[in-house]
Amino acid sequence: MHTVAVLGYNGYLGSHFVRGIERRGWSVLGLSRSEVNYSEVDSLSSWCRDNKPEFLINAAGYTGKPNVDACESEKSECLFGNAVLPGRIREVCEDLGIKWGHVSSGCIYSGERPGGGGWKEEDEPNFCFSHPPCSFYSGTKALGEEVLEGDENSYVWRLRIPFNEEANRRNYLQKLLHYENLLEAENSISHMDEFVESCLKCFELKLQPGIYNLTNQGSITTRQITNWMHEEGVTDKEFSFFQDETDFMDRAVSTPRSNCVLDTTKSEQAGVGMRPVEEAVRDSLRKMKQGCLVF
Amino acid sequence: MHTVAVLGYNGYLGSHFVRGIERRGWSVLGLSRSEVNYSEVDSLSSWCRDNKPEFLINAAGYTGKPNVDACESEKSECLFGNAVLPGRIREVCEDLGIKWGHVSSGCIYSGERPGGGGWKEEDEPNFCFSHPPCSFYSGTKALGEEVLEGDENSYVWRLRIPFNEEANRRNYLQKLLHYENLLEAENSISHMDEFVESCLKCFELKLQPGIYNLTNQGSITTRQITNWMHEEGVTDKEFSFFQDETDFMDRAVSTPRSNCVLDTTKSEQAGVGMRPVEEAVRDSLRKMKQGCLVF
Repeated sequence: MHTVAVLGYNGYLGSHFVRGIERRGWSVLGLSRSEVNYSEVDSLSSWCRDNKPEFLINAAGYTGKPNVDACESEKSECLFGNAVLPGRIREVCEDLGIKWGHVSSGCIYSGERPGGGGWKEEDEPNFCFSHPPCSFYSGTKALGEEVLEGDENSYVWRLRIPFNEEANRRNYLQKLLHYENLLEAENSISHMDEFVESCLKCFELKLQPGIYNLTNQGSITTRQITNWMHEEGVTDKEFSFFQDETDFMDRAVSTPRSNCVLDTTKSEQAGVGMRPVEEAVRDSLRKMKQGCLVF
Repeated sequence: MHTVAVLGYNGYLGSHFVRGIERRGWSVLGLSRSEVNYSEVDSLSSWCRDNKPEFLINAAGYTGKPNVDACESEKSECLFGNAVLPGRIREVCEDLGIKWGHVSSGCIYSGERPGGGGWKEEDEPNFCFSHPPCSFYSGTKALGEEVLEGDENSYVWRLRIPFNEEANRRNYLQKLLHYENLLEAENSISHMDEFVESCLKCFELKLQPGIYNLTNQGSITTRQITNWMHEEGVTDKEFSFFQDETDFMDRAVSTPRSNCVLDTTKSEQAGVGMRPVEEAVRDSLRKMKQGCLVF
């Protein structure tokens, strides 16, 4: 029985962490900023002294609503949530000797990796402020990783396009079903609940701190998923695609998006690998169909 | 008689603003973070409602102690002070309709301007996260300007290497006298008290909001200043110089420094120009000598 604190427990990520921790029979201490101002070093530190979590999870990123375009007009809060906050948590956890994990993102990469294959944990980001153009969101996520460089107390978990079977607007499979037009691109993606399992295993197995790419094994294209949706009988909708990325940028979004494939060898070798992506997607699609979880 | 609030009034910049405001016979409301947490939107907003400043000055940047090298190991607080804080002040001042000014820096440029001449207000920064290498400090100052883009309520005042006659370690002339070795480079520099005068005039003259380069007219090289020090009889020290920038980087500092010349045409035309740099430097050197203000 472990006691785990979750910062931002009532958000999309946080609520999945809460469920994952409870599934293991561990105890959860959920923090929301309206209850404890965990973004201030002093209040987080005194809360930790009082409540003594064994492990702490930062699930409180700033993603922008309804999507990352919104980060372009909320720059200071985006910087604060994604780059300043991790530095403050680091300070508190270093001081009190608490191990912790930070949810980062694979969106700090885009396109082909020089040398081929998926992007590895140690590859320098190429979709960030120092490699423009990038979205402001991706820039702040890369700065967040930079702020944690050299920290020997923390895991940096890279999530990428979360999905599962749930009727939730943050679920990638639901987005695909509801967007008017789709962009054909190849990506690594993360089954949300498996991602949480892998994060908790890092702590349970006492893995070395550092960065872990936590996406399902392999990669998919948008077209593959829409074909599987037809094959699994989730929908008979005829999906409409943008002509290309330029068409997508012109018609749909205001800031560029990352599309990339991550290498998951390190996570697999460490015992926190996730299922092959086709298996995880088809499993989610079947559950969506069975449970009528298409919203 | 105006009422001006100064955030960070007890710092190096802030204390010069306080003196400048008092010299004009205006009323100063000084805020320090230990008294009012002006970095939180709610507390700054309620303080402004209670105290009703006509103008607000953000003199609370994060510069690193003893120098910008320290920002490399204090990344999250550097980001917070230089990029998040201006965004929060913007939010409060937009909401309450308060005009305000932010102290930015010319250090977001380095080297020659393409096309020649000094860097103009509208030139894109070239010594920042999107144009590496840069110092983390410069990166955050450029992000601070980006966060204020489009704000119709604020002045962005670019200061560069402050100097005057005072016995203060932040005074560039004192630094030159006390560093073991100097780097020969061409720069624009700002007489601290004239800078403050120009900032206050922006408000007084109701200038258009936006960016203003506030350095003394022209530029100087390090060698020119040390020669003037000899000519004015401030010291007879034989100054020692680094061989070149590589020698300087190897022996003295851990993060690159900006050296640059700013164009001051816009400020001069708007009526907030500063004296020619030689006049301002020689004047300060004479006062240092007369007052025995060499520490």
